[in-house]
Amino acid sequence: MSPSTGAQVAIARLLAAGVDVCFANPGTSEMHFVAALDSAPQMRPVLCLFEGVATGAADGYARIAGRPAATLLHLGPGLANGLANLHNARRAFSPVVNIVGDHATHHKRLDAPLESDIEALAGWTHGSVHRPATPDDVAAAVDSAVGSATGEPGEVATVILPADFSWGPASPGAPVSPQRRPAPGGMQIEAAAELLRERGAHALLLLGGAANSAEGLIAAARIAAVTGARALIETFPARLARGRGVPHLDRLAYLGEQAVEQLAGTTDLVLVGARSPVTFFAYPGKPGDLVPSGATVHTVAPSDLEKLADHLGAAPYIDNPAELAALPRGPLNAQNWAQVIAALLPENAIVSDEANTSGLFLPTATAGSAAHDLLTLTGGAIGQGLPVAVGAAVAAPHRPVIALQADGSALYTISALWTMAREQLDVTVVILNNHAYAILQMELQRVGAAAAGEQSRSLLDLSRPDIDFVSIAQGFGVPATRATTAEDLAEQFRAALGEPGPHLIDAAIAGWSV
Amino acid sequence: MSPSTGAQVAIARLLAAGVDVCFANPGTSEMHFVAALDSAPQMRPVLCLFEGVATGAADGYARIAGRPAATLLHLGPGLANGLANLHNARRAFSPVVNIVGDHATHHKRLDAPLESDIEALAGWTHGSVHRPATPDDVAAAVDSAVGSATGEPGEVATVILPADFSWGPASPGAPVSPQRRPAPGGMQIEAAAELLRERGAHALLLLGGAANSAEGLIAAARIAAVTGARALIETFPARLARGRGVPHLDRLAYLGEQAVEQLAGTTDLVLVGARSPVTFFAYPGKPGDLVPSGATVHTVAPSDLEKLADHLGAAPYIDNPAELAALPRGPLNAQNWAQVIAALLPENAIVSDEANTSGLFLPTATAGSAAHDLLTLTGGAIGQGLPVAVGAAVAAPHRPVIALQADGSALYTISALWTMAREQLDVTVVILNNHAYAILQMELQRVGAAAAGEQSRSLLDLSRPDIDFVSIAQGFGVPATRATTAEDLAEQFRAALGEPGPHLIDAAIAGWSV
Repeated sequence: MSPSTGAQVAIARLLAAGVDVCFANPGTSEMHFVAALDSAPQMRPVLCLFEGVATGAADGYARIAGRPAATLLHLGPGLANGLANLHNARRAFSPVVNIVGDHATHHKRLDAPLESDIEALAGWTHGSVHRPATPDDVAAAVDSAVGSATGEPGEVATVILPADFSWGPASPGAPVSPQRRPAPGGMQIEAAAELLRERGAHALLLLGGAANSAEGLIAAARIAAVTGARALIETFPARLARGRGVPHLDRLAYLGEQAVEQLAGTTDLVLVGARSPVTFFAYPGKPGDLVPSGATVHTVAPSDLEKLADHLGAAPYIDNPAELAALPRGPLNAQNWAQVIAALLPENAIVSDEANTSGLFLPTATAGSAAHDLLTLTGGAIGQGLPVAVGAAVAAPHRPVIALQADGSALYTISALWTMAREQLDVTVVILNNHAYAILQMELQRVGAAAAGEQSRSLLDLSRPDIDFVSIAQGFGVPATRATTAEDLAEQFRAALGEPGPHLIDAAIAGWSV
Repeated sequence: MSPSTGAQVAIARLLAAGVDVCFANPGTSEMHFVAALDSAPQMRPVLCLFEGVATGAADGYARIAGRPAATLLHLGPGLANGLANLHNARRAFSPVVNIVGDHATHHKRLDAPLESDIEALAGWTHGSVHRPATPDDVAAAVDSAVGSATGEPGEVATVILPADFSWGPASPGAPVSPQRRPAPGGMQIEAAAELLRERGAHALLLLGGAANSAEGLIAAARIAAVTGARALIETFPARLARGRGVPHLDRLAYLGEQAVEQLAGTTDLVLVGARSPVTFFAYPGKPGDLVPSGATVHTVAPSDLEKLADHLGAAPYIDNPAELAALPRGPLNAQNWAQVIAALLPENAIVSDEANTSGLFLPTATAGSAAHDLLTLTGGAIGQGLPVAVGAAVAAPHRPVIALQADGSALYTISALWTMAREQLDVTVVILNNHAYAILQMELQRVGAAAAGEQSRSLLDLSRPDIDFVSIAQGFGVPATRATTAEDLAEQFRAALGEPGPHLIDAAIAGWSV
């Protein structure tokens, strides 16, 4: 059957562009799109119970699959609920294609209850917005959105699809060549080589984006070895290769004070797929721009990294895996839980890391783990970890997915657990449950706010009552257990990995103390 | 201690304007505001675990208290998460004052990870946006926002508070007289009286906003009795007086087909605090504008309603309470659950109604209940019911609050349960659990989408796995039970009302069938 309604055309164009997964939380204005899925069995719809789960899943999917998923969202309020994780997707440069239903064109002027300025919200993601002017423009709008999303770097593109265009007849459209943005360039390889040779340890490569692949990190390590230049990884990578077979490079610290120390002595900062470093927040009397005073900032394209290493005559990389701590024993704390995960991490795992303060010891612990990919909180909008794990598991059904998730952050998008159960995704969620917004207890001190009163403390405390994630997970259909010792965690983590489908471990971790 | 930091000034100005509750989900940029709460014990901070809970609670608070609460939100992503319920607040004309922290002014240019266009999001709510230009402008910004929020009608006003203004010294500011918007006017009372006398049953009063108070409804009933004019209530009132002592008037139906029938024969539509009626969504081949063809639309101010009744010489209102069904027995269905609630509804209760399709029989059932206030889903952005119940309970600690909540909608803001437990709010939540997005199963047919395939049905179905709200509620610290018969529900509802603090009843209701 050839496509006939606008909804069918939209789905056909998505499929033609290789977009075959749709994370959906539809409403009435999307019902024809939903109905059209029945005639497009190649499109996999994944129901999410909150839009922030759908958008975060699309981000996680893109980071692993390297191509966009679609989201299906209900008018302005539906897009609004999805914005925080689209912000993270934007900061990850993940390609995402939102399909946002709108009222029928003739209904707009009536200012019906759900009417709102969808363009204003879509524009907030800094991505392109495509509203077809007629039903026959639907095909081109979808094609343009996919082209725009998959440019270099990726972006969040939004198609606004009026209900009457969805239900009415539409032209299938002719395939258009998407207008790809050119990949960002950088220094000539020869000039970069000369700079690095000359500056040695005063030069620092800051790696981000595509440079965080195993190939990129190996090239960077080779360059560092031959020139004496240093190399660091950006603070919150979208996707970072780690573990055995991959050089263990430090990440630029979240805490500005530490980042300043890491960057000290640098006269030439070479950005390789990373943005120029800044602190996450401002603090009274402390610098926000982390480029050392007087340093020159250069740019090298990630795709040139291996050529640069070869041009420098760097020796092949020889892996020298980090030591892996033995399985620890005793009550769980901020350090030993990470050692348990590190020791038992399966080969080729995907780790969605939103452990926040509880994750302080994770990078060191997992440096010697089996090879894995790490997905981090790129935009600082918490509530990303579980949805990203959903998307990663849909993208890579044969890879184990581990979500290391702080308690407070988990609750923004907790219904992601249900989608894991519905789709029987092979995700093991470990909740680091310290019963607090521990990061804020730390930040309260860092910003110099002198607070010790009951009112302020009550806003940073998640006890009274304690949150029981075992009970919540079971409510969403995910088998769950509680761990209070390292031995518990090891046993439960092993068991969860050994069974298909999702599992959750509520790990009682002592809070951050400063 | 006199106010000294911008954060302290902001809190002092809020308190001076009578805003003494703050629904908060803060982050680093709000830490000085949090710290300043310790020196302002008159301000009650209420921690919410998701911003949509904070904004929905502020809406519910405003509907009951008649004055705004503040919200405290973290930068653009925090505001984004709160937008859907701010949309509902806008449609309810609820006054709300958002305090949104921003990066320090000198940090903005660095485009740090959480940087975004906060103004674009705040403007989406159609309310005023106040960004102080200097620390000494903080006082005036807060005063203007409160003034703007509490105009007639109310609105969602937003103060964007840079972190450095929060932590730095600021002038306490001189109290300013808020610029109140004038109340919307209407016809002269004499002209309205003449129109209604002349048109009789061809005139129809459509009541909304302030006309939905007991006084307004009584005046409308007196007018209808003396003139023969008809009276209907808007479809989704922000707050509606109901039960014994209040005339039972029908609401304009959600389904356009029924609304057309209700409005048929009307030559003169008199809007009393209501907007001109339109359908919620467009449907192929059906009208969206519900004003009958050829009818004239008039406006009467709600504050003139009683004077109009007196001017018409209408007789005093004599209550003729509707019959209350006896407590039903047997397995729960879409009708008998409503009869149970109706029979047991305590005097002076507040009912937050997001029962959606499961609530079809609720208005009829509760017409003869004890006097109560009903709060409905004004803007169509689901996930309002539980947060609104939180806010209502904070505003009226001595009134029982009942949240009648559809299962699918509950999950958008489910962590509201934790705030109920933390604050020990006297809220009884009844989840109408039909394991489906039943309204979408209905809407799929109404839009004429011919879908019966597995792909489309999977997106409207909340089973596989079934969601266990008893388990989820217990995880959030709220005692919970499951009801499968009318007898269960009656017993559990009575018990919940008899104990202080929150309770949840997971009521298994057969789905909507069409």
